[in-house]
Amino acid sequence: MEATKRTRMSPDERRAQLLELGARMLAERPLEQISVEEIADQAGVSRGLLFHYFSSKHDFHLAIVRYTSADMLAHTEPDPTLEPMDMLRGAVTAYVDYVTENRGTYVSMLRGSASGDEAMREEFENTRAVMAERIVTHLPRLGIELDARIALAVRGWIAFVEEATISWLRDPRIPRDELIDLHVAALPAVALGASAAIGLLG
Amino acid sequence: MEATKRTRMSPDERRAQLLELGARMLAERPLEQISVEEIADQAGVSRGLLFHYFSSKHDFHLAIVRYTSADMLAHTEPDPTLEPMDMLRGAVTAYVDYVTENRGTYVSMLRGSASGDEAMREEFENTRAVMAERIVTHLPRLGIELDARIALAVRGWIAFVEEATISWLRDPRIPRDELIDLHVAALPAVALGASAAIGLLG
Repeated sequence: MEATKRTRMSPDERRAQLLELGARMLAERPLEQISVEEIADQAGVSRGLLFHYFSSKHDFHLAIVRYTSADMLAHTEPDPTLEPMDMLRGAVTAYVDYVTENRGTYVSMLRGSASGDEAMREEFENTRAVMAERIVTHLPRLGIELDARIALAVRGWIAFVEEATISWLRDPRIPRDELIDLHVAALPAVALGASAAIGLLG
Repeated sequence: MEATKRTRMSPDERRAQLLELGARMLAERPLEQISVEEIADQAGVSRGLLFHYFSSKHDFHLAIVRYTSADMLAHTEPDPTLEPMDMLRGAVTAYVDYVTENRGTYVSMLRGSASGDEAMREEFENTRAVMAERIVTHLPRLGIELDARIALAVRGWIAFVEEATISWLRDPRIPRDELIDLHVAALPAVALGASAAIGLLG
Protein backbone atom coordinates (compact mmCIF):
# COMPACT_ATOMS: atom_id res chain seq x y z
CA MET A 1 0.00 0.00 0.00
CA GLU A 2 1.44 3.43 -0.84
CA ALA A 3 2.18 5.75 2.00
CA THR A 4 0.34 9.06 2.21
CA LYS A 5 3.20 11.40 3.06
CA ARG A 6 2.77 14.34 5.44
CA THR A 7 -0.64 15.42 4.18
CA ARG A 8 -2.02 18.34 6.18
CA MET A 9 -5.23 17.24 7.86
CA SER A 10 -7.55 18.46 10.57
CA PRO A 11 -7.46 16.36 13.78
CA ASP A 12 -10.81 14.77 12.85
CA GLU A 13 -9.60 13.92 9.36
CA ARG A 14 -6.36 12.48 10.72
CA ARG A 15 -8.17 10.34 13.25
CA ALA A 16 -10.56 9.06 10.57
CA GLN A 17 -7.62 8.33 8.25
CA LEU A 18 -5.84 6.26 10.93
CA LEU A 19 -9.00 4.30 11.66
CA GLU A 20 -9.69 3.74 7.96
CA LEU A 21 -6.14 2.38 7.51
CA GLY A 22 -6.66 0.17 10.56
CA ALA A 23 -9.97 -1.15 9.23
CA ARG A 24 -8.32 -1.93 5.88
CA MET A 25 -5.51 -3.81 7.61
CA LEU A 26 -8.11 -5.78 9.56
CA ALA A 27 -9.28 -7.19 6.23
CA GLU A 28 -5.95 -9.02 5.95
CA ARG A 29 -5.00 -10.06 9.45
CA PRO A 30 -6.44 -10.51 12.94
CA LEU A 31 -6.77 -7.49 15.20
CA GLU A 32 -3.93 -8.50 17.50
CA GLN A 33 -1.53 -8.31 14.55
CA ILE A 34 -2.45 -4.75 13.60
CA SER A 35 0.76 -2.83 14.07
CA VAL A 36 0.77 0.77 15.22
CA GLU A 37 4.12 1.30 13.48
CA GLU A 38 2.82 0.14 10.08
CA ILE A 39 -0.31 2.27 10.34
CA ALA A 40 1.73 5.34 11.30
CA ASP A 41 4.06 4.65 8.33
CA GLN A 42 1.16 4.31 5.92
CA ALA A 43 -0.36 7.55 7.17
CA GLY A 44 3.01 9.29 6.96
CA VAL A 45 2.92 10.29 10.62
CA SER A 46 5.07 9.41 13.60
CA ARG A 47 4.18 6.71 16.10
CA GLY A 48 4.03 9.50 18.67
CA LEU A 49 1.37 11.36 16.71
CA LEU A 50 -0.74 8.21 16.48
CA PHE A 51 -0.56 7.92 20.27
CA HIS A 52 -1.79 11.51 20.45
CA TYR A 53 -5.08 10.22 18.98
CA PHE A 54 -5.19 6.82 20.68
CA SER A 55 -3.72 6.44 24.14
CA SER A 56 -2.44 2.89 23.64
CA LYS A 57 -2.31 0.08 21.11
CA HIS A 58 -5.29 -1.47 22.87
CA ASP A 59 -7.19 1.80 22.65
CA PHE A 60 -6.40 1.97 18.92
CA HIS A 61 -7.58 -1.61 18.38
CA LEU A 62 -10.79 -0.89 20.27
CA ALA A 63 -11.35 2.25 18.18
CA ILE A 64 -10.90 0.22 14.97
CA VAL A 65 -13.53 -2.25 16.13
CA ARG A 66 -15.88 0.61 17.04
CA TYR A 67 -15.28 2.27 13.67
CA THR A 68 -15.87 -0.98 11.75
CA SER A 69 -18.99 -1.83 13.76
CA ALA A 70 -20.42 1.65 13.26
CA ASP A 71 -19.73 1.37 9.52
CA MET A 72 -21.56 -1.97 9.35
CA LEU A 73 -24.48 -0.63 11.38
CA ALA A 74 -24.71 2.45 9.15
CA HIS A 75 -24.83 0.25 6.03
CA THR A 76 -27.54 -2.02 7.40
CA GLU A 77 -29.98 0.49 8.88
CA PRO A 78 -33.55 -0.67 8.22
CA ASP A 79 -35.77 1.69 6.22
CA PRO A 80 -38.88 2.22 8.38
CA THR A 81 -40.88 3.66 5.46
CA LEU A 82 -41.06 0.18 3.89
CA GLU A 83 -43.59 -2.55 4.62
CA PRO A 84 -42.27 -4.66 7.55
CA MET A 85 -41.20 -7.73 5.55
CA ASP A 86 -39.61 -5.52 2.87
CA MET A 87 -37.80 -3.58 5.55
CA LEU A 88 -36.47 -6.83 7.03
CA ARG A 89 -35.40 -8.07 3.60
CA GLY A 90 -33.73 -4.72 2.85
CA ALA A 91 -31.72 -4.81 6.08
CA VAL A 92 -30.71 -8.47 5.59
CA THR A 93 -29.70 -7.82 1.97
CA ALA A 94 -27.57 -4.85 3.02
CA TYR A 95 -25.94 -7.02 5.70
CA VAL A 96 -25.12 -9.90 3.34
CA ASP A 97 -23.72 -7.51 0.73
CA TYR A 98 -21.74 -5.51 3.28
CA VAL A 99 -20.21 -8.65 4.75
CA THR A 100 -19.43 -10.00 1.28
CA GLU A 101 -17.63 -6.79 0.31
CA ASN A 102 -15.80 -6.56 3.63
CA ARG A 103 -15.26 -10.24 4.10
CA GLY A 104 -11.78 -10.19 5.60
CA THR A 105 -12.58 -7.42 8.04
CA TYR A 106 -15.78 -9.08 9.10
CA VAL A 107 -14.21 -12.49 9.68
CA SER A 108 -11.43 -10.85 11.76
CA MET A 109 -14.11 -8.96 13.70
CA LEU A 110 -16.15 -12.05 14.51
CA ARG A 111 -13.02 -13.91 15.56
CA GLY A 112 -12.13 -11.03 17.83
CA SER A 113 -15.63 -10.98 19.28
CA ALA A 114 -14.95 -13.88 21.60
CA SER A 115 -11.47 -12.79 22.59
CA GLY A 116 -10.39 -12.72 26.21
CA ASP A 117 -10.53 -8.91 26.24
CA GLU A 118 -13.46 -7.60 28.27
CA ALA A 119 -13.71 -4.17 26.60
CA MET A 120 -13.61 -5.77 23.16
CA ARG A 121 -16.35 -8.24 24.01
CA GLU A 122 -18.47 -5.42 25.38
CA GLU A 123 -18.03 -3.57 22.10
CA PHE A 124 -19.36 -6.58 20.16
CA GLU A 125 -22.18 -7.08 22.64
CA ASN A 126 -23.20 -3.47 22.05
CA THR A 127 -23.20 -3.95 18.28
CA ARG A 128 -25.35 -7.06 18.55
CA ALA A 129 -27.64 -5.25 20.99
CA VAL A 130 -28.15 -2.46 18.41
CA MET A 131 -28.94 -5.04 15.72
CA ALA A 132 -31.37 -6.84 18.05
CA GLU A 133 -32.98 -3.57 19.16
CA ARG A 134 -33.60 -2.52 15.55
CA ILE A 135 -35.41 -5.78 14.88
CA VAL A 136 -37.30 -5.77 18.16
CA THR A 137 -38.58 -2.21 17.60
CA HIS A 138 -40.32 -3.27 14.42
CA LEU A 139 -41.68 -6.63 15.55
CA PRO A 140 -45.12 -5.26 16.52
CA ARG A 141 -45.54 -4.22 12.87
CA LEU A 142 -45.08 -7.93 12.01
CA GLY A 143 -47.80 -8.81 14.49
CA ILE A 144 -45.23 -10.06 17.02
CA GLU A 145 -45.54 -8.81 20.59
CA LEU A 146 -42.25 -8.60 22.42
CA ASP A 147 -41.74 -10.80 25.46
CA ALA A 148 -38.75 -12.53 27.07
CA ARG A 149 -39.04 -15.54 24.74
CA ILE A 150 -39.14 -13.38 21.61
CA ALA A 151 -36.15 -11.35 22.85
CA LEU A 152 -34.13 -14.59 23.14
CA ALA A 153 -35.31 -15.69 19.71
CA VAL A 154 -34.10 -12.41 18.18
CA ARG A 155 -30.65 -12.78 19.85
CA GLY A 156 -30.49 -16.32 18.53
CA TRP A 157 -31.57 -15.19 15.07
CA ILE A 158 -28.71 -12.67 14.88
CA ALA A 159 -26.27 -15.50 15.68
CA PHE A 160 -28.03 -17.64 13.07
CA VAL A 161 -27.55 -14.94 10.42
CA GLU A 162 -23.89 -14.38 11.36
CA GLU A 163 -23.01 -18.08 11.34
CA ALA A 164 -24.92 -19.00 8.17
CA THR A 165 -23.42 -15.98 6.37
CA ILE A 166 -19.86 -16.82 7.43
CA SER A 167 -20.36 -20.46 6.36
CA TRP A 168 -21.77 -19.26 3.04
CA LEU A 169 -18.82 -16.92 2.42
CA ARG A 170 -16.46 -19.87 2.93
CA ASP A 171 -18.43 -22.11 0.59
CA PRO A 172 -21.12 -20.27 -1.38
CA ARG A 173 -23.09 -23.27 -2.64
CA ILE A 174 -26.40 -21.42 -2.88
CA PRO A 175 -27.10 -18.13 -4.67
CA ARG A 176 -27.04 -14.89 -2.66
CA ASP A 177 -30.81 -14.49 -3.00
CA GLU A 178 -31.48 -17.90 -1.46
CA LEU A 179 -29.24 -17.03 1.48
CA ILE A 180 -31.21 -13.81 1.96
CA ASP A 181 -34.50 -15.76 1.76
CA LEU A 182 -33.19 -18.18 4.39
CA HIS A 183 -32.36 -15.33 6.79
CA VAL A 184 -35.62 -13.43 6.20
CA ALA A 185 -37.84 -16.50 6.63
CA ALA A 186 -35.96 -17.58 9.77
CA LEU A 187 -36.90 -14.53 11.87
CA PRO A 188 -40.69 -14.94 11.98
CA ALA A 189 -40.20 -18.72 11.97
CA VAL A 190 -38.14 -18.73 15.18
CA ALA A 191 -40.01 -15.85 16.79
CA LEU A 192 -43.54 -17.07 16.25
CA GLY A 193 -43.13 -20.78 15.90
CA ALA A 194 -44.16 -22.32 12.64
CA SER A 195 -47.92 -22.08 12.90
CA ALA A 196 -48.10 -18.34 13.44
CA ALA A 197 -45.39 -17.52 10.90
CA ILE A 198 -47.35 -19.12 8.09
CA GLY A 199 -49.60 -16.11 7.75
CA LEU A 200 -46.60 -13.88 7.08
CA LEU A 201 -44.61 -16.16 4.80
CA GLY A 202 -47.30 -18.15 3.03
CA MET B 1 -9.09 -26.79 45.87
CA GLU B 2 -7.21 -29.45 47.78
CA ALA B 3 -4.13 -30.93 46.23
CA THR B 4 -4.04 -34.63 45.39
CA LYS B 5 -0.59 -35.54 46.62
CA ARG B 6 1.62 -38.07 44.86
CA THR B 7 -1.10 -40.60 44.07
CA ARG B 8 0.18 -43.52 42.03
CA MET B 9 -1.62 -43.56 38.71
CA SER B 10 -1.31 -45.21 35.33
CA PRO B 11 -0.28 -42.84 32.53
CA ASP B 12 -3.87 -42.80 31.21
CA GLU B 13 -5.27 -42.03 34.64
CA ARG B 14 -2.69 -39.29 35.17
CA ARG B 15 -3.44 -37.71 31.83
CA ALA B 16 -7.20 -37.83 32.53
CA GLN B 17 -6.63 -36.31 35.98
CA LEU B 18 -4.63 -33.39 34.55
CA LEU B 19 -7.32 -32.73 31.95
CA GLU B 20 -10.09 -32.97 34.52
CA LEU B 21 -8.29 -30.41 36.71
CA GLY B 22 -7.82 -28.19 33.65
CA ALA B 23 -11.50 -28.45 32.74
CA ARG B 24 -12.48 -27.53 36.30
CA MET B 25 -10.17 -24.50 36.24
CA LEU B 26 -11.77 -23.47 32.94
CA ALA B 27 -15.03 -23.06 34.85
CA GLU B 28 -13.48 -20.13 36.73
CA ARG B 29 -11.23 -18.36 34.25
CA PRO B 30 -10.50 -18.05 30.53
CA LEU B 31 -8.30 -20.64 28.86
CA GLU B 32 -5.33 -18.31 28.46
CA GLN B 33 -5.16 -17.94 32.25
CA ILE B 34 -4.97 -21.67 32.93
CA SER B 35 -1.62 -22.10 34.57
CA VAL B 36 0.45 -25.24 34.07
CA GLU B 37 2.12 -24.64 37.44
CA GLU B 38 -1.17 -24.53 39.35
CA ILE B 39 -2.48 -27.66 37.65
CA ALA B 40 0.75 -29.54 38.38
CA ASP B 41 0.50 -28.39 42.03
CA GLN B 42 -3.09 -29.53 42.33
CA ALA B 43 -2.23 -32.91 40.84
CA GLY B 44 0.80 -33.21 43.13
CA VAL B 45 3.16 -33.69 40.18
CA SER B 46 6.05 -31.66 38.83
CA ARG B 47 5.75 -29.21 35.97
CA GLY B 48 8.18 -31.49 34.12
CA LEU B 49 5.86 -34.47 34.44
CA LEU B 50 2.95 -32.45 33.08
CA PHE B 51 5.09 -31.61 30.04
CA HIS B 52 5.69 -35.33 29.63
CA TYR B 53 1.96 -35.64 28.83
CA PHE B 54 1.51 -32.35 26.98
CA SER B 55 4.37 -30.99 24.92
CA SER B 56 3.63 -27.32 25.64
CA LYS B 57 1.22 -25.04 27.44
CA HIS B 58 -0.57 -24.55 24.14
CA ASP B 59 -0.82 -28.31 23.66
CA PHE B 60 -2.26 -28.65 27.17
CA HIS B 61 -4.83 -25.90 26.52
CA LEU B 62 -5.82 -27.56 23.26
CA ALA B 63 -6.18 -30.92 25.04
CA ILE B 64 -8.44 -29.31 27.69
CA VAL B 65 -10.68 -27.91 24.95
CA ARG B 66 -10.76 -31.31 23.24
CA TYR B 67 -11.58 -33.05 26.53
CA THR B 68 -14.35 -30.56 27.37
CA SER B 69 -15.83 -30.72 23.88
CA ALA B 70 -15.81 -34.52 23.92
CA ASP B 71 -17.52 -34.49 27.32
CA MET B 72 -20.24 -32.14 26.03
CA LEU B 73 -20.72 -34.25 22.88
CA ALA B 74 -20.95 -37.45 24.97
CA HIS B 75 -23.65 -35.89 27.17
CA THR B 76 -25.74 -34.67 24.24
CA GLU B 77 -25.71 -37.73 21.97
CA PRO B 78 -29.13 -38.13 20.35
CA ASP B 79 -30.97 -41.40 21.04
CA PRO B 80 -31.80 -42.82 17.58
CA THR B 81 -34.36 -45.27 19.00
CA LEU B 82 -36.74 -42.36 19.77
CA GLU B 83 -39.22 -40.75 17.39
CA PRO B 84 -37.41 -37.96 15.48
CA MET B 85 -38.94 -34.98 17.32
CA ASP B 86 -38.46 -36.73 20.69
CA MET B 87 -34.87 -37.47 19.76
CA LEU B 88 -34.32 -33.78 18.89
CA ARG B 89 -35.96 -32.67 22.15
CA GLY B 90 -33.87 -35.16 24.12
CA ALA B 91 -30.61 -33.91 22.61
CA VAL B 92 -31.57 -30.24 23.12
CA THR B 93 -32.63 -30.90 26.72
CA ALA B 94 -29.33 -32.66 27.43
CA TYR B 95 -27.47 -29.70 25.89
CA VAL B 96 -29.31 -27.05 27.93
CA ASP B 97 -28.84 -29.02 31.16
CA TYR B 98 -25.18 -29.76 30.43
CA VAL B 99 -24.45 -26.12 29.71
CA THR B 100 -26.36 -25.02 32.81
CA GLU B 101 -24.36 -27.39 35.02
CA ASN B 102 -21.05 -26.47 33.37
CA ARG B 103 -21.81 -22.84 32.83
CA GLY B 104 -18.40 -21.36 33.58
CA THR B 105 -16.54 -23.88 31.46
CA TYR B 106 -18.92 -23.47 28.58
CA VAL B 107 -18.77 -19.67 28.56
CA SER B 108 -14.93 -19.83 28.64
CA MET B 109 -15.06 -22.34 25.79
CA LEU B 110 -17.30 -20.22 23.59
CA ARG B 111 -15.14 -17.16 24.25
CA GLY B 112 -12.11 -19.16 23.25
CA SER B 113 -13.83 -20.39 20.12
CA ALA B 114 -13.16 -17.20 18.23
CA SER B 115 -9.65 -16.69 19.52
CA GLY B 116 -6.80 -15.85 17.22
CA ASP B 117 -5.40 -19.38 17.55
CA GLU B 118 -5.90 -21.45 14.41
CA ALA B 119 -5.67 -24.90 16.05
CA MET B 120 -8.16 -23.85 18.72
CA ARG B 121 -10.64 -22.53 16.19
CA GLU B 122 -10.32 -25.76 14.23
CA GLU B 123 -11.15 -27.71 17.39
CA PHE B 124 -14.36 -25.71 17.84
CA GLU B 125 -15.21 -26.03 14.18
CA ASN B 126 -14.89 -29.80 14.54
CA THR B 127 -17.19 -29.85 17.56
CA ARG B 128 -19.82 -27.80 15.74
CA ALA B 129 -19.41 -30.04 12.70
CA VAL B 130 -20.16 -33.11 14.85
CA MET B 131 -23.25 -31.40 16.28
CA ALA B 132 -24.41 -30.40 12.79
CA GLU B 133 -23.68 -33.86 11.38
CA ARG B 134 -25.77 -35.52 14.10
CA ILE B 135 -28.73 -33.35 13.21
CA VAL B 136 -28.25 -33.67 9.47
CA THR B 137 -28.12 -37.48 9.66
CA HIS B 138 -31.60 -37.60 11.14
CA LEU B 139 -33.26 -34.92 9.02
CA PRO B 140 -34.67 -37.37 6.45
CA ARG B 141 -36.65 -38.94 9.33
CA LEU B 142 -38.23 -35.50 9.84
CA GLY B 143 -39.15 -35.41 6.16
CA ILE B 144 -36.34 -32.94 5.41
CA GLU B 145 -34.09 -33.77 2.47
CA LEU B 146 -30.56 -32.46 2.87
CA ASP B 147 -29.31 -29.87 0.40
CA ALA B 148 -26.89 -26.93 0.56
CA ARG B 149 -29.57 -24.59 1.90
CA ILE B 150 -30.57 -26.99 4.69
CA ALA B 151 -26.92 -27.53 5.61
CA LEU B 152 -26.53 -23.75 6.10
CA ALA B 153 -29.76 -23.63 8.11
CA VAL B 154 -28.46 -26.36 10.44
CA ARG B 155 -25.16 -24.48 10.98
CA GLY B 156 -27.15 -21.35 11.69
CA TRP B 157 -29.46 -23.24 14.06
CA ILE B 158 -26.50 -24.45 16.13
CA ALA B 159 -25.35 -20.83 16.51
CA PHE B 160 -28.95 -19.88 17.38
CA VAL B 161 -29.04 -22.51 20.15
CA GLU B 162 -25.62 -21.48 21.51
CA GLU B 163 -26.43 -17.76 21.57
CA ALA B 164 -29.96 -18.05 22.95
CA THR B 165 -28.71 -20.46 25.64
CA ILE B 166 -25.85 -18.18 26.69
CA SER B 167 -28.23 -15.19 26.82
CA TRP B 168 -30.66 -17.24 28.88
CA LEU B 169 -27.95 -18.32 31.34
CA ARG B 170 -27.09 -14.65 31.88
CA ASP B 171 -30.72 -13.65 32.41
CA PRO B 172 -33.08 -16.64 32.72
CA ARG B 173 -36.38 -14.79 32.26
CA ILE B 174 -38.21 -17.81 30.83
CA PRO B 175 -38.46 -21.33 32.32
CA ARG B 176 -36.04 -23.99 31.12
CA ASP B 177 -38.82 -25.87 29.33
CA GLU B 178 -39.75 -22.81 27.26
CA LEU B 179 -36.14 -22.37 26.22
CA ILE B 180 -36.05 -26.02 25.12
CA ASP B 181 -39.31 -25.53 23.18
CA LEU B 182 -37.82 -22.48 21.48
CA HIS B 183 -34.75 -24.46 20.33
CA VAL B 184 -36.72 -27.52 19.23
CA ALA B 185 -39.28 -25.54 17.23
CA ALA B 186 -36.56 -23.43 15.60
CA LEU B 187 -34.89 -26.30 13.73
CA PRO B 188 -37.74 -27.37 11.45
CA ALA B 189 -38.84 -23.73 11.27
CA VAL B 190 -35.54 -22.51 9.83
CA ALA B 191 -34.89 -25.66 7.79
CA LEU B 192 -38.24 -25.97 6.10
CA GLY B 193 -39.59 -22.47 6.19
CA ALA B 194 -42.76 -21.91 8.15
CA SER B 195 -45.31 -23.48 5.86
CA ALA B 196 -43.69 -26.91 5.71
CA ALA B 197 -42.78 -26.97 9.40
CA ILE B 198 -46.39 -26.64 10.44
CA GLY B 199 -47.07 -30.31 9.80
CA LEU B 200 -44.38 -31.28 12.28
CA LEU B 201 -45.10 -28.76 15.01
CA GLY B 202 -48.81 -28.24 14.71
